[in-house]
Amino acid sequence: MSSQPNEPSELHRADAGAVPDPALALVLDANRLTHNTAPTRFVEADEIRFAYRRFGFPLGTPIVLLQHFMGNLDTYDPAITDHLATGREVILTDNAGVGLSTGAAPQTVAEMARHAASLIDALGLEHVDLLGFSMGGYVAQQIAVDRPELVRRLILVGTGPRGGEGMDQLAPDVAPLFGAVHDPQDLMWLPIFFSPSQDSQAAGRRFLQRIRARTEDRDVPVSATTVAAHAAAAREWGAAAPGSFDYLSGIAHPTLVVNGSDDIVVPTINSYILQQNLPNAELILFPDSNHGSHFQFTALFNRSVTDFVDVESGSILVG
Amino acid sequence: MSSQPNEPSELHRADAGAVPDPALALVLDANRLTHNTAPTRFVEADEIRFAYRRFGFPLGTPIVLLQHFMGNLDTYDPAITDHLATGREVILTDNAGVGLSTGAAPQTVAEMARHAASLIDALGLEHVDLLGFSMGGYVAQQIAVDRPELVRRLILVGTGPRGGEGMDQLAPDVAPLFGAVHDPQDLMWLPIFFSPSQDSQAAGRRFLQRIRARTEDRDVPVSATTVAAHAAAAREWGAAAPGSFDYLSGIAHPTLVVNGSDDIVVPTINSYILQQNLPNAELILFPDSNHGSHFQFTALFNRSVTDFVDVESGSILVG
Repeated sequence: MSSQPNEPSELHRADAGAVPDPALALVLDANRLTHNTAPTRFVEADEIRFAYRRFGFPLGTPIVLLQHFMGNLDTYDPAITDHLATGREVILTDNAGVGLSTGAAPQTVAEMARHAASLIDALGLEHVDLLGFSMGGYVAQQIAVDRPELVRRLILVGTGPRGGEGMDQLAPDVAPLFGAVHDPQDLMWLPIFFSPSQDSQAAGRRFLQRIRARTEDRDVPVSATTVAAHAAAAREWGAAAPGSFDYLSGIAHPTLVVNGSDDIVVPTINSYILQQNLPNAELILFPDSNHGSHFQFTALFNRSVTDFVDVESGSILVG
Repeated sequence: MSSQPNEPSELHRADAGAVPDPALALVLDANRLTHNTAPTRFVEADEIRFAYRRFGFPLGTPIVLLQHFMGNLDTYDPAITDHLATGREVILTDNAGVGLSTGAAPQTVAEMARHAASLIDALGLEHVDLLGFSMGGYVAQQIAVDRPELVRRLILVGTGPRGGEGMDQLAPDVAPLFGAVHDPQDLMWLPIFFSPSQDSQAAGRRFLQRIRARTEDRDVPVSATTVAAHAAAAREWGAAAPGSFDYLSGIAHPTLVVNGSDDIVVPTINSYILQQNLPNAELILFPDSNHGSHFQFTALFNRSVTDFVDVESGSILVG
């Protein structure tokens, strides 16, 4: 794959979902992969064989998704990725040691960021938007710091800054949710991603239906070794320290920060801290929601993200 | 004017800007008033002759705008009101003692809310959306508490809760901005509504052009007596007190809270406090912006507000 333009194409500006040439549209439609049909592919970098999936409209700046703790290629939400795919390429990733990716999961976010950037490099992408959820948001921030030229825009969901509030460890009532055994196991996400309300839990069950809909070529669960390594990485990232937010002033990328009203995993105040300390960040907090607010307010999230990535620059937002 | 339906019409759900019947569209177009052409009208209530302007598409739930400290009918932004008017009626209001409205400006938000509700009643409106900016946001909250059945949705911009942080008085460097003499006087809003950045100040100058564009039938400046009374009302509302946020749990209305990243008038943290304490509130914070962030990110603000008021209920937001 060749490099991508620095700015979205005219097409993106006019109508991110439209295909200008009917003949081209037919060709694209015939070959169109979706979240559920895109094959798992592999690329080699850092002596790791990274698993990823790639689909969507092959113009403009691609968006790379970075996954949460204990998540894999199958826990991205097709209601989000298929929508994003109408206007750009979407690349779902497994970091080192996650799911079908080989290698050992590192015990620091810095190392996870290095691996994720190597994966992006190996795909031949020179300029991408990053959508990082939870721990994937830590990784996205670190990539923006280490490799600023690789990143065009950042979308940080259910995440927080280095040394944020209540981020050194999970709350005592939350930690057991990650170890609980369920049948099927994906039921674990209902109390982690969704609020206790009826509406939110119903949205959670719809989310589970969506992530179960892919029946073939699925990813494999995250191993206990990887869980332990990533838990160590999260603790290191979350350890409070004087000046731990200082790096945020150096992330000049336009950033969209999104979270639920009561995130029990990465407390919601950290999304506010991100917005207040990043030079160019918008914040959206949804009502009656938890760590996975974007799986609940999917339509609003999709609209906000496409608004955010489709405009030419931050300054075009100025009315 | 007769009463309004409780829920937006089918038309609103499908496409808030469209007119279904070409013949009807012609009739409406011929009679269409805009922000700049709608005449100042008057209605009597509470022994006050209230000044207001009313325009827009006469279906669905009307939206009533409640103005900021030292603002009048001419400081609402036509880039916002004319957009909202494509999908509903827009009603701009002067509270008692403001601009062309007669009566004495009260020294409490409670009394301001009583007057604003009387004005809405006198217009024959039984169910409205309220968009309150700054002190207008205090009034909107108070109406939602006192007259919950009168309100469908709340939009709270650049505002805060009773007894919020840093709301008992203006910061020492901010207070003089409200007394400074300018030629023309509306230049006072540049440092109050916009951030010091070039982009934000440029947006501010465009805002001033917009609010100067109405050349006839303009409102009159707010009197010194009214300024003093409203300053007292703001101090009373902002005075810190234990449990001062408790009333927010009783405002069940779907609420959209919007502010700039660094509001120097009503500190931004208060928008976060509103979102965290209201049972059903979404928060949007814009980057590089101040008290008047909606005048700067006008397109995004309009999109967010119409998304918010056009959906059938909060629960339809659940993906």
